[in-house]
Amino acid sequence: MSEPMWKNGIIAVDWGTTNRRAWRLDRNGHSEAEFEDDQGITAIKTGGFPAAVGDVRQRLGDLPLLMAGMIGSNRGWVEAPYVPCPSGPAELARKLQQIPAERAAIVPGLSYHNGARADVMRGEEVQLFGAVAAGFSPPDALVCHPGTHNKWAVLEGGRVTSFRTVMTGEMFSLLSKHSILSQWLQTSVTVGEPFLAGVRQGMGGEALTAELFSVRAGVLLGVREAHEAASFTSGLLIGADVRTGLAGAPDTGDVIVMGRPELTRLYAAALAEAGREAREVDGERAFLAGIQALVKELP
Amino acid sequence: MSEPMWKNGIIAVDWGTTNRRAWRLDRNGHSEAEFEDDQGITAIKTGGFPAAVGDVRQRLGDLPLLMAGMIGSNRGWVEAPYVPCPSGPAELARKLQQIPAERAAIVPGLSYHNGARADVMRGEEVQLFGAVAAGFSPPDALVCHPGTHNKWAVLEGGRVTSFRTVMTGEMFSLLSKHSILSQWLQTSVTVGEPFLAGVRQGMGGEALTAELFSVRAGVLLGVREAHEAASFTSGLLIGADVRTGLAGAPDTGDVIVMGRPELTRLYAAALAEAGREAREVDGERAFLAGIQALVKELP
Repeated sequence: MSEPMWKNGIIAVDWGTTNRRAWRLDRNGHSEAEFEDDQGITAIKTGGFPAAVGDVRQRLGDLPLLMAGMIGSNRGWVEAPYVPCPSGPAELARKLQQIPAERAAIVPGLSYHNGARADVMRGEEVQLFGAVAAGFSPPDALVCHPGTHNKWAVLEGGRVTSFRTVMTGEMFSLLSKHSILSQWLQTSVTVGEPFLAGVRQGMGGEALTAELFSVRAGVLLGVREAHEAASFTSGLLIGADVRTGLAGAPDTGDVIVMGRPELTRLYAAALAEAGREAREVDGERAFLAGIQALVKELP
Repeated sequence: MSEPMWKNGIIAVDWGTTNRRAWRLDRNGHSEAEFEDDQGITAIKTGGFPAAVGDVRQRLGDLPLLMAGMIGSNRGWVEAPYVPCPSGPAELARKLQQIPAERAAIVPGLSYHNGARADVMRGEEVQLFGAVAAGFSPPDALVCHPGTHNKWAVLEGGRVTSFRTVMTGEMFSLLSKHSILSQWLQTSVTVGEPFLAGVRQGMGGEALTAELFSVRAGVLLGVREAHEAASFTSGLLIGADVRTGLAGAPDTGDVIVMGRPELTRLYAAALAEAGREAREVDGERAFLAGIQALVKELP
């Protein structure tokens, strides 16, 4: 996409599996209007993406579109192949999946493969590079990005050199909706002694499938309070997650925890329990900074 | 229940959450008739147990009933409080939950609590003591009982001294029905290199929530074959399960693996991968032997 195409501003879309969020940005990257709705990719019928994109323009203006997230997956609009790590914003910008007829482009996700282990991300890469560009994160850092699928990314010189996904959010959701623990997982999770006890237990490295059952047994035998079970269980999962993220990662410096505040708060508390300082970063601000950084890289 | 009550035989029922199985046994413990249906405790409405028990007698005869499993839970007919470990068949027989008006009794489950960790079982205890009584298991053994909630029980002198539950079966079911991996978990699980590779990986002790996501990433990146994902994932969960079961348990002797043959086969293969011999025992035969052993202990 040539420079002039963006001169009147753009629409940036973070288009995920179940939701999408869109912003109209002026030529300096300032947000002028935005909306969020439940039209994630699974809500769009086959062949329905041009209309869904039209709806975005209807609401925010007839501007070029720069999109990130699951919109670029094999279940999205147009597949944007993963860019292998190490990668920085320049590599991403070069591999934008252009859809010229629609004046649109999709940011590719990142992949990591070291022989033994494979991993993928879509959407978080924009926030990672945005956090560095905006100074929310140093260019060398361990970044934790909680969500349905938490990402631990190692940044070196502003580029992602490796990352690892832990499906903590999805697991908590599965357990609370469908498992034998569900009746005890409906209360809200708070940072307190039950949560921190769970974190310590989860960092101990026992199999989660064993630890989880003992939550149930503990309540049945009266060893654990039912109203503490949700926080303890969340702590268990996040403790195992933190153990995974810290393994093999740089062992000094603040850990950047980026995302929705109600999640970053839990991870910051778990990291403190593991002896690490956390710096919380708002995911939305990082996303918009990442979009700006990508626009600057465009040829 | 006095001795004469059993003199014309009994009906034994293994009454679980989703299914029940019942046998008419003659006074020597030989099965004369049986049935299995989907009238597990969750299928019985409040107040419906007398009728559900009447239905069992309608089909098998008007005999005293000895029942085990979730029928004795707080969601069952009459709660039979857990008997703490260590416990043998004599302790269970003394704590049978009598329902004299119905000529019925419920076998209590077992509990284990060592300060740090709590655990419970209901139904498997009958099979454990039956396996010893029938000579399927030595009186000192590590017994693995796969199912929705796999139990690892340490037997000493024919009594259960400790046990641990791992919710492997439930987790595989949650993942195959509701998770982001579900599309790849519909194929049948077989013992082969993908399964054994999963077992080795699962025994490595990394967080299952991290290992599971890399199954997805591996398929997306073409590093793993989609048709192998179910066996690999089952191997991951069973590997973590075996690691849990072997930790702190006697490190010599055959491991007794008791249950349904399609499950015991998988655990026997995983144990072999961990360097342990397994002896597979049919769970039904052990249950009937356990009922006989309990009847003998009755005052």
